[in-house]
Amino acid sequence: MQEIKEETKMKIIDFTWPAGFYSDGINAGLRQVKNDLGWLYSKVPAQAAGVYTTNQFQAAPTKLTKQTINAKHVLQAIVMNSANANSCTGAQGEADALAMQQLAATKLELKPALIGVASTGLIGKTLPMKLIKAGIKQLQLTKTTAVTNAILTTDKQPKTCSVQCKIAGKLVTISGFAKGSGMIHPKMATMLGFVTTDAAISGTQLQELLSQQVDATFNQITVDGDTSTNDMVVALANGLAGNQALVPNSPDYSKFKANFSYVLGELAKKIAADGEGASKLVEVNVHGAADKADGQKVAKAIVGSNLVKAAIFGEDPNWGRIMGAIGQTDAKLDISNVAIQMNGQALVKGSIAVDFDPTAMKLALAKPKIIIEVDLHNGVASGQAWGCDLTYNYVKINASYHN
Amino acid sequence: MQEIKEETKMKIIDFTWPAGFYSDGINAGLRQVKNDLGWLYSKVPAQAAGVYTTNQFQAAPTKLTKQTINAKHVLQAIVMNSANANSCTGAQGEADALAMQQLAATKLELKPALIGVASTGLIGKTLPMKLIKAGIKQLQLTKTTAVTNAILTTDKQPKTCSVQCKIAGKLVTISGFAKGSGMIHPKMATMLGFVTTDAAISGTQLQELLSQQVDATFNQITVDGDTSTNDMVVALANGLAGNQALVPNSPDYSKFKANFSYVLGELAKKIAADGEGASKLVEVNVHGAADKADGQKVAKAIVGSNLVKAAIFGEDPNWGRIMGAIGQTDAKLDISNVAIQMNGQALVKGSIAVDFDPTAMKLALAKPKIIIEVDLHNGVASGQAWGCDLTYNYVKINASYHN
Repeated sequence: MQEIKEETKMKIIDFTWPAGFYSDGINAGLRQVKNDLGWLYSKVPAQAAGVYTTNQFQAAPTKLTKQTINAKHVLQAIVMNSANANSCTGAQGEADALAMQQLAATKLELKPALIGVASTGLIGKTLPMKLIKAGIKQLQLTKTTAVTNAILTTDKQPKTCSVQCKIAGKLVTISGFAKGSGMIHPKMATMLGFVTTDAAISGTQLQELLSQQVDATFNQITVDGDTSTNDMVVALANGLAGNQALVPNSPDYSKFKANFSYVLGELAKKIAADGEGASKLVEVNVHGAADKADGQKVAKAIVGSNLVKAAIFGEDPNWGRIMGAIGQTDAKLDISNVAIQMNGQALVKGSIAVDFDPTAMKLALAKPKIIIEVDLHNGVASGQAWGCDLTYNYVKINASYHN
Repeated sequence: MQEIKEETKMKIIDFTWPAGFYSDGINAGLRQVKNDLGWLYSKVPAQAAGVYTTNQFQAAPTKLTKQTINAKHVLQAIVMNSANANSCTGAQGEADALAMQQLAATKLELKPALIGVASTGLIGKTLPMKLIKAGIKQLQLTKTTAVTNAILTTDKQPKTCSVQCKIAGKLVTISGFAKGSGMIHPKMATMLGFVTTDAAISGTQLQELLSQQVDATFNQITVDGDTSTNDMVVALANGLAGNQALVPNSPDYSKFKANFSYVLGELAKKIAADGEGASKLVEVNVHGAADKADGQKVAKAIVGSNLVKAAIFGEDPNWGRIMGAIGQTDAKLDISNVAIQMNGQALVKGSIAVDFDPTAMKLALAKPKIIIEVDLHNGVASGQAWGCDLTYNYVKINASYHN
């Protein structure tokens, strides 16, 4: 995720739907009280792109949405539910995902081929189709944000982000929402994320942009090292802003890219901060890497280490664990020249301990956001990753999720 | 770790040192009360082999021991301490490891080139050499097991194993001890493990056997996914049993191999069972894999999943997480034909849920040892791995280790 430069003229705004996007979210009875079913709709067919879990057991809705998007890179709606992932559900699961697509198509008077399906929640139970069917019948086309709640599972809050910028003189809005709290260690995509925009851009161009930007954002967060069967990030661009379709040569393409990437990055960080049981957001910035892949690998190894995460929960400057995590990677290292800071306090220089002021360190580590800066002194590339601490509550939440 | 067959005629005995091995362990003041310094000694030079951490930040003692063993595959003693890993300690750390080797050499009247050094504990602090120096002066040659305590850190108890067998008519004893509780996810070797035997076998032969057997034993355990900077397993064979030196063609080689492997396997399992904060030992047996590498990869992915580990702590039959862990690997899968059992209770067949008796399941998961059986129905190879559950205590121990 690059820094937002002045010339990108991005405006971060309260969450709002881009032109032509409608949605709804309701309680359909899959969860006790909270919203559990929703949809997203564009009043014209939107160019569509997606990235999907690399888990070999890809859930039925994930497979169906991938197949639907890949056919023509066009979607007009996505129907989604929480509480049940419709994963590891065999032939019944595939039939249910298709039925969900068809039910939404009927209600919206659209072809099923214009509808994506997303599910998240418990793996291994078939969908309660009666509830889904009755629920879809109730869904409306609103400008509310209820859908951002309908996809949550153990999340404490919805993750949303909206930005606006001028693209070739036209006002473009990019708005994303996501869910994810546990089983977060994406490869290609995390949990559920949806980005909507009224910008005009072709589906294949959008796909290229999404695939590229997901690598530095969603794929650089980790909560627990587990990659879900349902991970998916879908982007929809309906073109209602009226700009000329964006291509890499367009004068404002880099501005659009920066804004789009910002939304992905914010959603990713919000997922990390709301990691199951998390009490602190952890950001790792690696500098001086031989190449970007090394920088990202090292950043993700640190943010993914249980021992580092537990030490951060304990506000313990146990940098040996950070060194351990760095050394476990195959990144090119100058093993005698690594430097580490935590929240501005130097801990390691030349790969050995720096004397630090215990009081200043204590204050620094008591903060709710921990920034670990690592300098590998081995090149000019960098990498970033985001995660959270490992707490009693993570264990508590995950010891009893199923019951 | 293969099953022990009848013809191997292995006798598992109370821990005892093989002929010609002596040791000692004392409190040298690195820890408050517990033993923290010790050594292991053979009255004649022993053939030696070692496997070492793949972490790029290899600690000074680990590097020194590797270099010493690799020179001639002969050692006569190993001096070891806990509480301080002498890792990430730069030039001072290397000088201190050499000094430890020299101090032990002086006390034992041996050349330094016959002495290995092992340290474990906190990373990043230099060794308190005054205490080490005074401590080494106190060490004696005894037949006690005090050294098995001197290497412990957060371990609740020492891990030891002794077996005896007849090799070409001679009684051979193989005795190992190990430490390890956190930062356990070995690649090539875990934490500290020492195997002594009075069998005659060349150093290079012993190296081949150790490297091979560590892969299916020590390298198949995981506590937290972190590979330490100090991991090392060293084997010493002093030949005092009087057998003809073992080579792969020797009639009793396979018996020796089975016994040797059994000791490694038992030590590995004891480390897993004593994982930091662990309340349950987890064993994963994967069958029907396309090849052994796939079987081991899948077994280790399951046993290493935080979500699976937290579910086991909660005695929750949340098999979706096991499927998730399997699907994250690149093992060849028939994705519609995976079966899973936990402690004999079927959970998944044909990759979908099996109805189970909740009462029987509850009883099965309440046991202190959880055996997960996975059938990939995709070949005839198998793999095993061992680990433990993820508990509140893991977080507690690791939130405050450094303070």
